[in-house]
Amino acid sequence: MTALSLREAIARLIADDGLGPGDRLPTETRLAERFEVARSTVREALKRLEEEGLVDAVQGKGRFVSALAADIVERPITRYEGVAEMLTRLGYRVTTSVFSVAEVAADQQQAQSLAVELGTPLIRLERLRYGDDQPLVFSIDHLLRDALPGPLGHRDWSTSLTGALAAHGREVTTSVARISAVELPAEIADRHRLTGLGPWLLVTETCLTRTGRRVLLAEDYHRGAMLGFNVRRRR
Amino acid sequence: MTALSLREAIARLIADDGLGPGDRLPTETRLAERFEVARSTVREALKRLEEEGLVDAVQGKGRFVSALAADIVERPITRYEGVAEMLTRLGYRVTTSVFSVAEVAADQQQAQSLAVELGTPLIRLERLRYGDDQPLVFSIDHLLRDALPGPLGHRDWSTSLTGALAAHGREVTTSVARISAVELPAEIADRHRLTGLGPWLLVTETCLTRTGRRVLLAEDYHRGAMLGFNVRRRR
Repeated sequence: MTALSLREAIARLIADDGLGPGDRLPTETRLAERFEVARSTVREALKRLEEEGLVDAVQGKGRFVSALAADIVERPITRYEGVAEMLTRLGYRVTTSVFSVAEVAADQQQAQSLAVELGTPLIRLERLRYGDDQPLVFSIDHLLRDALPGPLGHRDWSTSLTGALAAHGREVTTSVARISAVELPAEIADRHRLTGLGPWLLVTETCLTRTGRRVLLAEDYHRGAMLGFNVRRRR
Repeated sequence: MTALSLREAIARLIADDGLGPGDRLPTETRLAERFEVARSTVREALKRLEEEGLVDAVQGKGRFVSALAADIVERPITRYEGVAEMLTRLGYRVTTSVFSVAEVAADQQQAQSLAVELGTPLIRLERLRYGDDQPLVFSIDHLLRDALPGPLGHRDWSTSLTGALAAHGREVTTSVARISAVELPAEIADRHRLTGLGPWLLVTETCLTRTGRRVLLAEDYHRGAMLGFNVRRRR
């Protein structure tokens, strides 16, 4: 493992262990054991994290998670996760309204994004995710019909789609997403009484399995005033 | 160089060379020469890029940039670049209105974000970036006063701040950013006649030099209807 990938691993560890600003990092020795690398590699990775402002070193006291690091780990945009999963991690009690589920034929744009023939059967799913009873994420999903076999009526569509796909051997491991700021389309806002909630962060995402198969097109409208994303950027 | 970092390097190469969907990638041999790695490492990296849907392999013909890859390289959110630089890369003719430049004292939040004492002298800069004469990005920057020495009046503030910082040995190499969807604050919209332009993508960013020094706090409002960001996400 190189210092570069170790740095990512340590950043991920901060996120996974729920460390907050001011929390002490494990010692060099513990990190070396945990990631099975030399202490010199750990030191190099920690040095880089310091330079990026994610770790504060205090002489004689150890290394601590910085305030900047806490900003990043809250909702990293480079991490793929289902909406319910993400909201749960942020501490919300999640509930779901399923507005519609139907079989449709892939239009030109959907066919192209999913790399399938025009007219390929898809499942179209329209849902609203609430966190602590507040509407937070409005989702329109299109997934390959054969990715979730069986009659549409026999499935509980209020649960995680990512989870259902994984249970059918089609775990989403990567995605390509586009992020923009939009108003909720008036037709959707009126129909579901979601007017006056301000701008939404629209994430349009093509989701791929480990073998590169494109299984899901997700359009998620995240309520702007409530939900942001964090990212580390490099030149 | 590992297959993982090589994959990033190839993705960056696609962006830097301006390759579009359907364009052929350099051969394994050329990539191995360019990055000074073994062909087996190149093959592994290309395989991963295929699995992520960024590269299409066509039997007997070579490897090509996929439509998904083109989506990503257009405006990758994980890449730090100045606003003028980004707009220029997107093909816009960039012009700048400087609304104000002044010396201010760091307030509590600014001091914390920049890791300086309360009251530390900062330069506050308010500007609007136009692309092809359309207002695209409204920016409020706060930077360390001593990062750009000399009288405020003796500098052309319409040019790149990132460039000016680099010229003073304070090149920004990384940042930590938060992205949200907002309305432009009414006070700003009214004062600069930027009303009715729809939602804006707000990027709030702490920018660091190579040595980890925090030199700049940038608040950039990107016009939502015109500018989006792209990102690859991984589980």
